[in-house]
Amino acid sequence: MTFEFDTAMELAPLAGGEHTPGTFSGGFTDGWIIGDAVNGGIVMTLATTALRRVLTDSGGHPDPVAFSGYFLTPSVPGEAVVETSVLRSGRTLSTGQASVSQPDPDGRLVERMRALASFGDLDASAEALRSAAPPEMPPPDQCLSGDQAPPDFLRASSLLKRLDLRIDPATAGWAVGKPSGKGVMRGWLRFRDGREPDPVALLFALDALPPVAFDLGLLGWTPTLEFTGHVRAKPAPGWLQVALSSENLSGGLMEEDARVWDSTGRFVAQSRQLCGVRVPAGG
Amino acid sequence: MTFEFDTAMELAPLAGGEHTPGTFSGGFTDGWIIGDAVNGGIVMTLATTALRRVLTDSGGHPDPVAFSGYFLTPSVPGEAVVETSVLRSGRTLSTGQASVSQPDPDGRLVERMRALASFGDLDASAEALRSAAPPEMPPPDQCLSGDQAPPDFLRASSLLKRLDLRIDPATAGWAVGKPSGKGVMRGWLRFRDGREPDPVALLFALDALPPVAFDLGLLGWTPTLEFTGHVRAKPAPGWLQVALSSENLSGGLMEEDARVWDSTGRFVAQSRQLCGVRVPAGG
Repeated sequence: MTFEFDTAMELAPLAGGEHTPGTFSGGFTDGWIIGDAVNGGIVMTLATTALRRVLTDSGGHPDPVAFSGYFLTPSVPGEAVVETSVLRSGRTLSTGQASVSQPDPDGRLVERMRALASFGDLDASAEALRSAAPPEMPPPDQCLSGDQAPPDFLRASSLLKRLDLRIDPATAGWAVGKPSGKGVMRGWLRFRDGREPDPVALLFALDALPPVAFDLGLLGWTPTLEFTGHVRAKPAPGWLQVALSSENLSGGLMEEDARVWDSTGRFVAQSRQLCGVRVPAGG
Repeated sequence: MTFEFDTAMELAPLAGGEHTPGTFSGGFTDGWIIGDAVNGGIVMTLATTALRRVLTDSGGHPDPVAFSGYFLTPSVPGEAVVETSVLRSGRTLSTGQASVSQPDPDGRLVERMRALASFGDLDASAEALRSAAPPEMPPPDQCLSGDQAPPDFLRASSLLKRLDLRIDPATAGWAVGKPSGKGVMRGWLRFRDGREPDPVALLFALDALPPVAFDLGLLGWTPTLEFTGHVRAKPAPGWLQVALSSENLSGGLMEEDARVWDSTGRFVAQSRQLCGVRVPAGG
């Protein structure tokens, strides 16, 4: 069986002509849309997958450990080109750069995201010496399914069809016009088709919940300007537990912090992103 | 008067020959050393200063808002070359890339750090709608001066001569062999020569305190692998208040989170970095 996430990560090398080595052709379908654009997590994991392939083909490290993406223009369904370059291959880490572009109507490539990333070997058996504890939240069957999201939201989000998402009722008040105002969001997440999480999918999971801005009553689109994620361990199969929070909102910008634990309660990844947010006058 | 930090940020355009436009020559002195290498904050702010100059020369945005640096090799005193490129000039943000290199003994450039950064206009008068409160800590004159650091540490850190650094006694136990074990570090910071903080200097401030690892009893060098900082407001003149924390230590890696408030108690910047850490056997 080929899983939907892996199909979305398919890449073909582009060789010769104007293409530098390490350039790949992939594509965005209309199956991973949120609002008007392709979900940023898919853009980031496509770049990660390309860079991972270049690194492992040359004997380098396989697991994304740190990833920073700067979003330049919104990605849309259609062809995507990923250019990569290796900056350093070290003993414990390899670092590279990736750029995701899409052709405009004249065939000219427009850059969507520029990223830097480091890869290592995540040892599944390594014991954490210090580790953030997972948040208290009800089990998945006592949470609100993404299927119960407002119809407008569901329509604008083909992404939700790929995911089994269960939001902690304590952080789902925004769906009925009663956001908590605390700036938190918690949920359980897994791929609907049974694809198990791995380090690349953790980068996706860090950006897959509804925006934490919703819990502040800000229901508009919050485009990611910059996203940096750290993957700290290989996740066990099963549900991921994701917790978002934000403390600072000013000048039309807010941070969204995300943390992920695997089904054993092990802390496996965290991120911070800076997003744009439109605050209604007087808000 | 020319301040030491501004002297460290001096750059001369390199034009023609093998140099692409937006390339600058600068240098690292032995005045900003920590351990065996040039302080990462100086490397990051030199890259930021170069990119800022290219952006403002073309009418772009002056204030660093997001900065992500991936450290490839340690920087040493001597010539440094900064190459920049502009990725996007938007209405509210401009985004670019910068690379800091130094010549090896054969004159071949070795890359030290690759960075992506976005710049905007930080409005000094913008009111924060949500904001992290500064930590409770004694005033500067009741904190431990950097001058009281262990002699070995002072000798290895010419950086401390540039800074007036006051560490909260509650997080300074490591200096007398009694770390709190909580993974926190708090201090007051200003330039010793009276240079006032600005958005570029905030990026420096985010990486200027002793490593949070010290508070865990890990007194070795903790090289930064990746650093991402967000500058959220223009700081008022005077002391900066800096708080570090870390929750996750595994596989020889830990995160160090930093937050900075200005002398009015306003939250102005935050960062997270992933650093390498050597844990003694049985530790």
